[in-house]
Amino acid sequence: MNRNFMIVIQYEGTRYQGWQRQGGSLKANTIQDKIEQILTKMEGKKIEINGSGRTDAGVHALGQTANFHIDTERSKEEILEYLNRYLPEDIGVISIKEMSERFHCRLHAKSKTYCYRVWNRNIPHIFERRYMYEVQTPLDVERMRTAAELLVGTHDFLAFSSAKAKGKSTVRTIYDIRIEEKDGEVRFTFHGNGFLYHMVRILVGTLLEIGTGEREPECIPAIFESRSREQAGALVPAQGLTLVEVDYE
Amino acid sequence: MNRNFMIVIQYEGTRYQGWQRQGGSLKANTIQDKIEQILTKMEGKKIEINGSGRTDAGVHALGQTANFHIDTERSKEEILEYLNRYLPEDIGVISIKEMSERFHCRLHAKSKTYCYRVWNRNIPHIFERRYMYEVQTPLDVERMRTAAELLVGTHDFLAFSSAKAKGKSTVRTIYDIRIEEKDGEVRFTFHGNGFLYHMVRILVGTLLEIGTGEREPECIPAIFESRSREQAGALVPAQGLTLVEVDYE
Repeated sequence: MNRNFMIVIQYEGTRYQGWQRQGGSLKANTIQDKIEQILTKMEGKKIEINGSGRTDAGVHALGQTANFHIDTERSKEEILEYLNRYLPEDIGVISIKEMSERFHCRLHAKSKTYCYRVWNRNIPHIFERRYMYEVQTPLDVERMRTAAELLVGTHDFLAFSSAKAKGKSTVRTIYDIRIEEKDGEVRFTFHGNGFLYHMVRILVGTLLEIGTGEREPECIPAIFESRSREQAGALVPAQGLTLVEVDYE
Repeated sequence: MNRNFMIVIQYEGTRYQGWQRQGGSLKANTIQDKIEQILTKMEGKKIEINGSGRTDAGVHALGQTANFHIDTERSKEEILEYLNRYLPEDIGVISIKEMSERFHCRLHAKSKTYCYRVWNRNIPHIFERRYMYEVQTPLDVERMRTAAELLVGTHDFLAFSSAKAKGKSTVRTIYDIRIEEKDGEVRFTFHGNGFLYHMVRILVGTLLEIGTGEREPECIPAIFESRSREQAGALVPAQGLTLVEVDYE
């Protein structure tokens, strides 16, 4: 019986070249590969999984999703247990659900939540260092919030991405950007219907330049209009970024 | 001018043989050694530091303390900055304070707080895995709280330690034990005037055996009375243990 399972996956991205192998490289060290290898071993034939989308090298996930079709008699608990038994210690499957035949994790995703964590003190944070980006210049959260309000909504985000403008739409909707400051950490949370290549990291890079005073919050509309990558801020490092959640109907 | 500085240190203990070198081994990889090497380099002569106490191999710290005497014109901010510049990424100094000449971090410590973190689900916790011990059997927190009440107070903790009974007092006072359960984690917090060798880890081992139902909460008084290590529970792994704070007057 062909069945369709969705899994929710947590990983520390530090050691990986991202979620998915890119183009030609056959031996890439990716999270998708690790999971496919184990399912393939379990089933005795090649199994492929559909992630909700790629995450870049070094990016973490608290709730990445993927689905796959297998012809099995195993219970979902047995599949979960099998995966966690063989996965390396920096990848884990935290839940599993059986779905209808046509469900697809990328095609049916309604929205995603990412967070970007910045450590804003001039002393180190040892325990969370792998999940944060250190910025020593003090950040003005109010200035960044003013700019974030101008980013929320439906816009052409081409300037805030490393995507190529070649026919595909670069219009996305950001429903909400939260910026919270607590005990030295500044945490940016983005909720939107989809994000272009590098988009969250360039949005954060731009907000940080506003937070340190290098730019004014009012620069945002002109960057949208320019549709030019050079007008936006720097790409911040992958290690501060975490895919928090993928939502379905 | 001879000055006395106290530093508060954070570390991930995973890679280290503990805070302090033991007896004969000259080349031990310890946290104390790392800090002394940097201060020695800074001052151009051998500097030794006094920790508040040892932590075992693999144990972490959010707030270990140490003091040292140096003859310097540097400001405390410069010393902090120098230390953090050269320390490895899993050790950090989070504050520094100048103290009176006779202050000593071990001799003047009034109390200490340790926490032990247990992950109590049968799915992995990827992000915090280095700081928690995984227990798959469900724990009954109420049973453990009942036992914890019998542990609080002034007792001879010899049975709950790997200390040798040879003249030195093994009487200690535990002011408080908190057991909190949240999102799959069970966290034990111990506040006391001092802890014997392995004491926190054996207390937790004993509480866990009560939490899983292997022992009754009422077994505690007989263990105290026995003064016998064999009567208490297992020694749980170092990786779940963190020295949270050392208090002074």
